[in-house]
This record gives sequence, structure tokens and C-alpha cells, in this order.
Amino acid sequence: MRAFPSNSAAPVAVGEYFRQKSAQVDEWLDRLLPREAEPPAEIHRAMRYSTFAGGKRLRPILAIATGEIFDADERALLPAACALEMIHTYSLIHDDLPAMDDDGLRRGRPTCHVVFGEAMAILAGDALLTQSFRTLAEPAGLGPERQLQVIAEVAQAAGTVRALIGGQVLDLQSEGKPIDGGRLDEIHRAKTGALIRCAVRVGALVGGAGERELAHLTEYGEKAGLAFQIADDVLDETSTSEQLGKTAGKDAAKNKATYAALYGIAGARERAAALCREAIEAARRASREARLLEEIARFIVERNS
Amino acid sequence: MRAFPSNSAAPVAVGEYFRQKSAQVDEWLDRLLPREAEPPAEIHRAMRYSTFAGGKRLRPILAIATGEIFDADERALLPAACALEMIHTYSLIHDDLPAMDDDGLRRGRPTCHVVFGEAMAILAGDALLTQSFRTLAEPAGLGPERQLQVIAEVAQAAGTVRALIGGQVLDLQSEGKPIDGGRLDEIHRAKTGALIRCAVRVGALVGGAGERELAHLTEYGEKAGLAFQIADDVLDETSTSEQLGKTAGKDAAKNKATYAALYGIAGARERAAALCREAIEAARRASREARLLEEIARFIVERNS
Repeated sequence: MRAFPSNSAAPVAVGEYFRQKSAQVDEWLDRLLPREAEPPAEIHRAMRYSTFAGGKRLRPILAIATGEIFDADERALLPAACALEMIHTYSLIHDDLPAMDDDGLRRGRPTCHVVFGEAMAILAGDALLTQSFRTLAEPAGLGPERQLQVIAEVAQAAGTVRALIGGQVLDLQSEGKPIDGGRLDEIHRAKTGALIRCAVRVGALVGGAGERELAHLTEYGEKAGLAFQIADDVLDETSTSEQLGKTAGKDAAKNKATYAALYGIAGARERAAALCREAIEAARRASREARLLEEIARFIVERNS
Repeated sequence: MRAFPSNSAAPVAVGEYFRQKSAQVDEWLDRLLPREAEPPAEIHRAMRYSTFAGGKRLRPILAIATGEIFDADERALLPAACALEMIHTYSLIHDDLPAMDDDGLRRGRPTCHVVFGEAMAILAGDALLTQSFRTLAEPAGLGPERQLQVIAEVAQAAGTVRALIGGQVLDLQSEGKPIDGGRLDEIHRAKTGALIRCAVRVGALVGGAGERELAHLTEYGEKAGLAFQIADDVLDETSTSEQLGKTAGKDAAKNKATYAALYGIAGARERAAALCREAIEAARRASREARLLEEIARFIVERNS
């Protein structure tokens, strides 16, 4: 099941791993989402349009890489990983709505509401969130108690308290206001961090990790999640919309506080690198088999899109 | 646990049952939703504003009345019932948005986006949907396999295929178009019927109903759900906004097909009454203890708000 020996002495080819696993995630997503032809077709087209828009699949791949450390069963791991991508995609669709961030470009294409209209975009987001829990509740060969634990974990991370929706609220409320580093961390630990942390924990839970391993992996997920957001802020200022596949320079234009604005580009890069090192140390404490997680942490801060 | 002996010879006081059970549902909802003071407070205020706006609590009460037939454990039954009300409330918040039905009045108060703004209303709906699954995944003293079955049941009914979101899509697409009775049934079996059917099934599943009972109760839920929507259409034409707590005459104004328009007020009332009789027969076939479900079916078509 493991495509790459994660404890081999040779460096793990993280780029190749991402290519292989994202293809596998796409196959499973295609299987798990309603067919386009299934009526009402319009909403299924909208759900698939945003899902298959070429995302990095970071969250499902983190879940998969973590699950593979514990030789998790693919038939339980892949659906859970895909459920995380459905939630991520729903949050992007709603975040891009005119009443929210009002963005017209995402993953290199016009956003869902630009193509399908606002009403359909709201419903497509709702439907992806719902489909995520439907997927998580389907028989998966995992023990039912552990399966319930995974559902509770995902629902918590997608919720309001130190979680995805709460982070979006804090983010909206902070627009145009001067905020400090502590507050910025709080926003992004919730908005981006909670689901990334959750992805690692879901992989660990599906794989049957022990408590000690789960604690270290949770720390890995928290550090990697924050590093991801800091790297995102830097990319937002240093890259073009074409490179990013989404509107660059948006945060600065909206007068939003960012890590780049708060610490400068160099300072933000330094902090991301420090978090990346700490994430790698946590991964090492979790397992000697966690080489891929180390590589993914590096990828998170070194990527250019 | 059963407040009213449902197999007594005396008619069951359905009004009193609704008062008692909706108070109990409100207590549990209060316990299950994040506190208003919990940061970020604004979203919790918005979630609670729309949840505690004085709805009839039909869906949770249907789940409770059905569960009580089988002496379901209250600690498992009430959270599941409340999860259904969270989903119903989320669907109302999103349905009322400017991009959707654009309605300013619901349950006798200004709608969520009127009070909290569109962004917060979108997120409050998302959060109630998420909280619903979080509630369903929490330990409830139900066997984990049955609990997973309940989650799958709710996710299916809240989804797109012959379900809540799919019904909203069909409804939006039918605006201003001539449609026939078959199509109108299809819309409302999905938009309103799926969650009402689900409420009955969830109550039966939590109570441990057998397959034969579940089949009859499902039929009851389907018939009662459609009767509810037909009665709603009649009320939309014959009542004031004040009586309804929502904008009356809206469907006619938006040139939407309704049962009242298609069959006339008298014809629609007759169809609702026939469905009510069929629902009652199905409830009788399910159990001799289903007197309350019979009364609820009558209430559904005879109510005036």
C-alpha cells in the first residue's frame, strides 16, 4: 500500500508522491460525489466544477501520508481523506462569495458563483459539506467506534470554536483593523490550521495510532498548519495571480493583516522555517516512519503556488 | 418517559404534547449549541437568533413521538431530534438569503441576514449544519453501529438526490415556469418531505424499530411530509404574514407553482386530507402505539400557522 518507503535513507520524492496521491484522491472523489448526470444536474456540475479545479490536495494527502505510517486500510483512509477535501472545497466556495471575500478567481478558474450564480454556489457549498459527512458515515471497514471518533473530529474542526468557520468569522471581523501577531495566529490556527491539524489526526485515527503518537502528530499538524498559512501570506505578496491560481495581493488590497505585513517578507519566511523545523521534530518524535511528513512540511514552506 | 399514553382511548392532546416537547427540544438545543459568550460570539448569537425564533419544532417532535413508540432512550433521542432542527434552521437561513428567496421575515422576526448581515448568515447556516453532525457523532448511549446509521440517514436526507438541497435547486429552477403536479410533488418530496421522512425514520432507528415497522413509518413520513407542504401552500394564500410569521403570498408573487394554484384551495385541501388519512393508516399498520403520530398528521393539515 505504501508507494514510498518512508524510512529509506534516500530522500523521499515528495513531488512524485503528491502527483500519485492526488491522482488517487481525484479518482475517489469522482467515485464519492454524485454523477453530473444525476438530477438535479446543475448542482452536481457546480460541486464537481469546484472540486476538480486542480487543488494541491494537501489535506487529503496529509491524512493519507499519516495513515500510511500505521498501515491504514486504504478503503477507510481514502474516503476520510476525500471528505476533508470536500470540506475544504465548500469553505473556498463560500469564502469566495460576493458577501464574503468576493473573489472571482480560484484554483486558476472563475469561482463557482461566477460560473453558476450565487444561489447555486451557496447550495453547492452546503452540498459538499453534507456529502462530506455522508462519506464519513458510510461503511468503511473501520470499527464503528473509531469511525464515530473520526466524524466527531472532522465536525469539530469544521465548526466555530477554534475551528474553520470561527476562523472565517475572526478573519472577516479583523478586516481593516490593526491586529497583533497573537490575534493573527488565533485567526489562522482556526481558519486554516484546524482542518490541517484534523487531516493529520484523521489519518492517525484511521491508522489506529496510539495516544503518544497522536499527541506528537497533532503538534506536527498544528505547526505545519500555521507554517502553511504564513507561506501563503508570503506567496500572496511575492507571486502573480497566474502562479497562484487565485487573486494575488488580495489581502493587502483589502487592508487585511498578514504575516508578511506584520513581520516583513524575510521575517515571515523565518517564522515559517522555524515552524517547519518544529513540525519535523514532532513528526520524528511520533514515528521513525514519518519521513514523508517531514518532506511535506518542507514542501509547505518551500512551494511556489 | 412517555408524557401521554399514546394507546389510551381518550384523544391525545396534541397541542399540549407540542408545548411540552418543544420546551424540551429548546432546552436541549440550548445545551447543544455553543454559548453566546463563547468567542467568536457574533456567529453564536446568529446561530441562536435563528434557532430560538419560535419554530413549531415539527421535525424534532416527529422524531421524538416516533422514538417514544419504541421507548427510545431520551439521551439518544433528544440530541438526534435537535440535530434535525439545526438542519432545518440552517436551510431556512440559507433559503432566505438575498441570492436565494430574498426574504426578510421568518418565524415572526427579521431574517438572519437582515440582523447579522449576509456573510454572518451564510456562516451561521454552515455552522448549524456542521453542529448537527457534531451532535449526531457525540456519544449518546446508542450502539455505535446504529448511531452511524442515523448519521448516514440524516446526511442522505440533507443532500442533493431526492433530498433537501436538491429540492431547493428544483424549486429555484421552477420559478416562473409552468410545471405539472408530478413535478411539484417531486420538488416538495425533496425540499420538505425528505427531512420530515427522515425525522420519523431517525426516531424509529433510535428506538430500534424492526424492518416492517420502519417501512410503515417511512410511508407515514412521506405522506405526512407532502401533506405538510400542501397545507403550507394553502396557508400561504389564505393567511396573513402576521399569522404565519413569514411573508404570506410570496409564492404567488414570485410566480411559483403551488398546490393551491394547481388544484385550487379546495382541491389542495382535499389532497392534503387524503394524504393525512393515508399517513394515519400507515401509522396504524406500524404500531398500535402510534396514536400521537395520527394526531400529528391531523395537526399538520389542520394548523393555521
